[in-house]
Amino acid sequence: MKDSVVELRGLFAGKLFTQQQDMAPFLTDWRSMWHGYALAVALPDRVDDVARIIRWCHDHDVPVVPQGGNTGLSGAATPDKTGRSIVLSLVRLNRIRGIDKLNNTMVVEAGCLLQNIQDAAREADRLFPLSLAAEGSCTIGGNLATNAGGTAVLRYGNTRDLCLGLEVVTADGRIWSGLRGLRKDNTGYALRDLFIGSEGTLGIITAAVLKLYPLPAARVVAFSALNNLEEAVSFLDSATRRLGSSLTGFELMSAETLDLVIKHFPEARNPLGTRAPWYVLSEVSDLASEENAVHALEEILSEAVENGTVADAVIAQSLAQSESLWALREGASEAQGMEGKAVKHDISVPISRIPDFIAAASRLLNNQFPGDRLIVFGHLGDGNLHFNISPPVGEDGAGLIARQDAINRTVHDLVAAYDGSISAEHGLGVLRHAEARRYKSPVEWELMRTIKNALDPKGLMNPGKIFA
Amino acid sequence: MKDSVVELRGLFAGKLFTQQQDMAPFLTDWRSMWHGYALAVALPDRVDDVARIIRWCHDHDVPVVPQGGNTGLSGAATPDKTGRSIVLSLVRLNRIRGIDKLNNTMVVEAGCLLQNIQDAAREADRLFPLSLAAEGSCTIGGNLATNAGGTAVLRYGNTRDLCLGLEVVTADGRIWSGLRGLRKDNTGYALRDLFIGSEGTLGIITAAVLKLYPLPAARVVAFSALNNLEEAVSFLDSATRRLGSSLTGFELMSAETLDLVIKHFPEARNPLGTRAPWYVLSEVSDLASEENAVHALEEILSEAVENGTVADAVIAQSLAQSESLWALREGASEAQGMEGKAVKHDISVPISRIPDFIAAASRLLNNQFPGDRLIVFGHLGDGNLHFNISPPVGEDGAGLIARQDAINRTVHDLVAAYDGSISAEHGLGVLRHAEARRYKSPVEWELMRTIKNALDPKGLMNPGKIFA
Repeated sequence: MKDSVVELRGLFAGKLFTQQQDMAPFLTDWRSMWHGYALAVALPDRVDDVARIIRWCHDHDVPVVPQGGNTGLSGAATPDKTGRSIVLSLVRLNRIRGIDKLNNTMVVEAGCLLQNIQDAAREADRLFPLSLAAEGSCTIGGNLATNAGGTAVLRYGNTRDLCLGLEVVTADGRIWSGLRGLRKDNTGYALRDLFIGSEGTLGIITAAVLKLYPLPAARVVAFSALNNLEEAVSFLDSATRRLGSSLTGFELMSAETLDLVIKHFPEARNPLGTRAPWYVLSEVSDLASEENAVHALEEILSEAVENGTVADAVIAQSLAQSESLWALREGASEAQGMEGKAVKHDISVPISRIPDFIAAASRLLNNQFPGDRLIVFGHLGDGNLHFNISPPVGEDGAGLIARQDAINRTVHDLVAAYDGSISAEHGLGVLRHAEARRYKSPVEWELMRTIKNALDPKGLMNPGKIFA
Repeated sequence: MKDSVVELRGLFAGKLFTQQQDMAPFLTDWRSMWHGYALAVALPDRVDDVARIIRWCHDHDVPVVPQGGNTGLSGAATPDKTGRSIVLSLVRLNRIRGIDKLNNTMVVEAGCLLQNIQDAAREADRLFPLSLAAEGSCTIGGNLATNAGGTAVLRYGNTRDLCLGLEVVTADGRIWSGLRGLRKDNTGYALRDLFIGSEGTLGIITAAVLKLYPLPAARVVAFSALNNLEEAVSFLDSATRRLGSSLTGFELMSAETLDLVIKHFPEARNPLGTRAPWYVLSEVSDLASEENAVHALEEILSEAVENGTVADAVIAQSLAQSESLWALREGASEAQGMEGKAVKHDISVPISRIPDFIAAASRLLNNQFPGDRLIVFGHLGDGNLHFNISPPVGEDGAGLIARQDAINRTVHDLVAAYDGSISAEHGLGVLRHAEARRYKSPVEWELMRTIKNALDPKGLMNPGKIFA
């Protein structure tokens, strides 16, 4: 096999790493949760080269593990321990091929950093709305492969909703050029949507046509205290009906979550005088002015405070204040990490059922695992919760890790009972693939398996991911 | 085979027609463009019965032609002439299973009329935005199977964008229950998006979870005259950047199109004093008030008139006036029909390229087919044009029909050269399947074919549609 890799090196112009020290960064995820080995790490910088590599892998029965910024949370970009795979890093395939302002589209290669895409859009006086914690290091190829979510889904949808066309290298190394920048095209199957979110198991996304939006003149944030979750959902409902798509953020965090953020970030503080069981960060964007956005927030908040839905609220008076309010919400995950070991869930349920779900899940966990702390936050406007658990204060994480499977089972069984999803925005990778098998119906699983077998009959595209 | 049909009759509780006079309405499309024969027409009213019918067809190698309201424009719901198929009409599977106001979702069965769904949403103080000419008689199952477009795509997307989950009977008669009402769910392949738009060739959509939106308080329409298409695209750009998603309609019609509407509808008149080569209907929706919507239109129009983008404009002063302006645009297709035979195209190109495309296409057609009249109108905001041709005044349609293939070739070759789509919102059916084969890349065609073969290995699901 090593001889063949020499042959592969001659097949394309980009880099090929075969030494352990060169390969090391590509063989583990950024959190060091998964580790693997590889025959080589290929870093092509042209689509033709991607096709050549895949064709070679196809001819030699070598598995391929595609990788973008390596910021995933489910282990989908790490090779297994057999050392038989090629890691295909797309980071050098990173040109912005063009921006069409009047069509509100942008053609980008898979390895473009999300932040570079956001910046290029902004320079063209446009918004590319996808936004998430890893935006400085994740690639759009990874975002597409995992159908990434983030903080702007409420208004703009998931990554799938932001993509009009794809270029893909198929499992046998052919290039499908589906880079159409069309809002309407009913000429056959939605191949684009099938490849998006398939975590590299059907083919390699090499480029995409992205949708652009008007750049808001202002985004203003409010922070509210609420006495219960029913009121949070009711507040979301009235804000949505009043503001429609001007409501660009609606994030939830529990008092315990805010406490952790305040504990671990010296600059963080509760922006309200009140302590309440739940906090909501709401964001309004306006195309014309900050004044409009503030006015809109004032309207919904004064009504909500008046009718008792919201206990207390503050509206940011400056961009800096808006950012510091966002920092409270965005610091949640990191703060929990600083607190120690945690068991994390990325779940969604119908928005209407969130209060019941959280009540039921809390009851179950408190009974089964007394003392464990629930750290609940998430994208309430999307029905997406990071329903996390930290061990009792003073306990190290060993006990928690020992009961992790039992906790997952309790939470995910309940998610299933609430018609929810056990992976709302992070994908399955290797983290959740066995559980997905448990909760998906046999019919759905077989449909997926049939498609996988049809498009990747040799089973070489990111094997072991999605399917256990 | 006829004996087996007796067996089929015993397998489910709904209706089964086998007499020619009962079957006749199901064997031709509403425009009488395609005619076929069938073994029987099955009208189940329960999903289990759909599964039983499909299983029977699967066991007996009987092709299945699913049908909704039979309002399609591409012949996808008409059986072929062999008489070997079962037509599966979903019209009796028409319950609204539920509305979840706080989740902004609605679960409907495939046979629900679009208008009934719109009405039920409105009764719940919500909007189901899909809107198209056939809404009084088309079914949501047909809308989903063809990924229908219509007049609200600019703001709300195509049918695919309005659906969160599906229930599908697979080609071998199993029920996939994918009725999830979730905004985020990254647990595998986008089966939903694959079945949507597959025109019944992969399975039978029996129910869906639809997205609901806040009901606007007002929708106000303006009608503008423009001197050229560059200005229409520029007006769209500035309106989008100013109004964002408040801009809910942006429709184009040529002077010749408006002339035809005025000629054939006695109540129609040009709402402007001016005659101009192009007219744009723009619609603004506002969640709060009609006043806001009028104000927004006034702002964009006064700016556009001032800088010369728009030559003249009028804003509707009442709901009745808004409706009569919409009637001008919506009457275009019917008026052309009243004028006589026509060759119609349902194409899309990138919005930025529309002026060039129309100029180039007009030049080509005027040269090749002198005297033929171009009747151009469509959803400019979506890049979707109905780029139609009527014969010279005084000529009957025979000559036009004789040159129809040559006209299609000229138009669609140019669409391909402009990276466009030859079927933006109508689907392929049998009308465009041979042309789709011509314009799609071999790789894309083979990917589609592979999926078809995998999910329908016996080739019984709506055979002859999409694939010639």
